[in-house]
Amino acid sequence: MSYFEKRIDGEQKYKGVIVNVVLDRAELCDGSIVKREVVQHPGGATILPMDDEGYCYCVRQFRYPFQKELLEAPAGKLEYGENPRECAVRELSEETGFTADEIIYLGADYTSPGFSTETLHIYLARGLHKGKNHLDEGEFLSVEKHHIDELTELVMNGEIADGKTVIAVLKAKRLLESEK
Amino acid sequence: MSYFEKRIDGEQKYKGVIVNVVLDRAELCDGSIVKREVVQHPGGATILPMDDEGYCYCVRQFRYPFQKELLEAPAGKLEYGENPRECAVRELSEETGFTADEIIYLGADYTSPGFSTETLHIYLARGLHKGKNHLDEGEFLSVEKHHIDELTELVMNGEIADGKTVIAVLKAKRLLESEK
Repeated sequence: MSYFEKRIDGEQKYKGVIVNVVLDRAELCDGSIVKREVVQHPGGATILPMDDEGYCYCVRQFRYPFQKELLEAPAGKLEYGENPRECAVRELSEETGFTADEIIYLGADYTSPGFSTETLHIYLARGLHKGKNHLDEGEFLSVEKHHIDELTELVMNGEIADGKTVIAVLKAKRLLESEK
Repeated sequence: MSYFEKRIDGEQKYKGVIVNVVLDRAELCDGSIVKREVVQHPGGATILPMDDEGYCYCVRQFRYPFQKELLEAPAGKLEYGENPRECAVRELSEETGFTADEIIYLGADYTSPGFSTETLHIYLARGLHKGKNHLDEGEFLSVEKHHIDELTELVMNGEIADGKTVIAVLKAKRLLESEK
C-alpha cells in the first residue's frame, strides 16, 4: 500500500540564519486535512579522513544546543548551489588541513525526516596529505587522532552520539572489514 | 583545549507544533558575541524489533519533508515527562503490535547537534510477542519484515537513509556479530 500527503497551502513562520520554518496544510490519503510543520535546512556534508594505518582525524567542538563539546567527523553546511562532495573537500581542508587522493561516498543521512529537510552526505577520505587548516571566523575546534577501532568502540558504548559521526564510523568500519 | 559558548540572552522566535526556535546571543571563548539559533525538540525513541531468526520489523511511511515514503525503525516523539524506554515500548506496540521480553539500549543519537536539541534514544527489542497494532489518528504506515542482513545491505548501499534507522541497524548488526 502506498501513502501520500498532498500539500494544499502553507506559510513561512520563521526565516532564520540556518533554518526556516514553514507550516503547511496537507491532505492525507483518507482525505483528512492536517498541519505539517517543516524545518527547512540547506543540507551539508560530513567527511571522515582516515590514513593508511586506520587512524582518523575528528574535531572536538562546543555544540551550543547541548552545551558541551562533542567529538565529530569534520562537517559543514552546503553553501548556495554547492555540490556536496566539494563541500566535504572544503570542510576537510578548512577544519583539518588535509587533502585526499580518494573520496568515497558512504550515502545520505536524513537527520530528522519527520519534520526537517536536512540531508547530510557522508564521505570517507583516504590517501591523506597534510596541510594547514584555516578555520572560519568564530569557529573554534581541536583536531584529534583516533584509530577507527577506537572510534567504533566510542560509538558502540555511546560516548560518540553525534548521528552523522556514528554513521560515518560504522559505515567506514564495515567497508574496511569487507575489504579484508 | 576546552571551548565554551556562554548564553547572554535570547528570545523565542517561533512556537510550533513539534519544534520551537530560539535565537540567543552567546559569548565565545575569544570574547566575541555571536547569534546562536536553536531548534528545540522534545526528543524521541527508536526501537528495532528483531525476532530469534534475525528478521526485523520496520515501518514504511510517507515523510512530508522529503515527499516520499521511507523505510524506518518504529519511532516516536517523547510525550511530556515520558521516559525514553517507555516511549520506545509504546511506539513498538502502537506501530507493530509487538511486545518484547528484552529491550537493549543502543545509545543516543544527536540528530543535528549544530542547531537542534533533538536527542533520539535507540533500542533493540528481542523476544518478540505478536499483538495487534493501534495507530494514532492520521498515522498511516505499513509494517515490513526484513532480515537484519538485508537491512544492513540497504543501509550500506544507501537505500535506507533515515539516520536513526541506519544507526539502529548497524549497531544491532555489530552487536549480533559480537555475540557469535
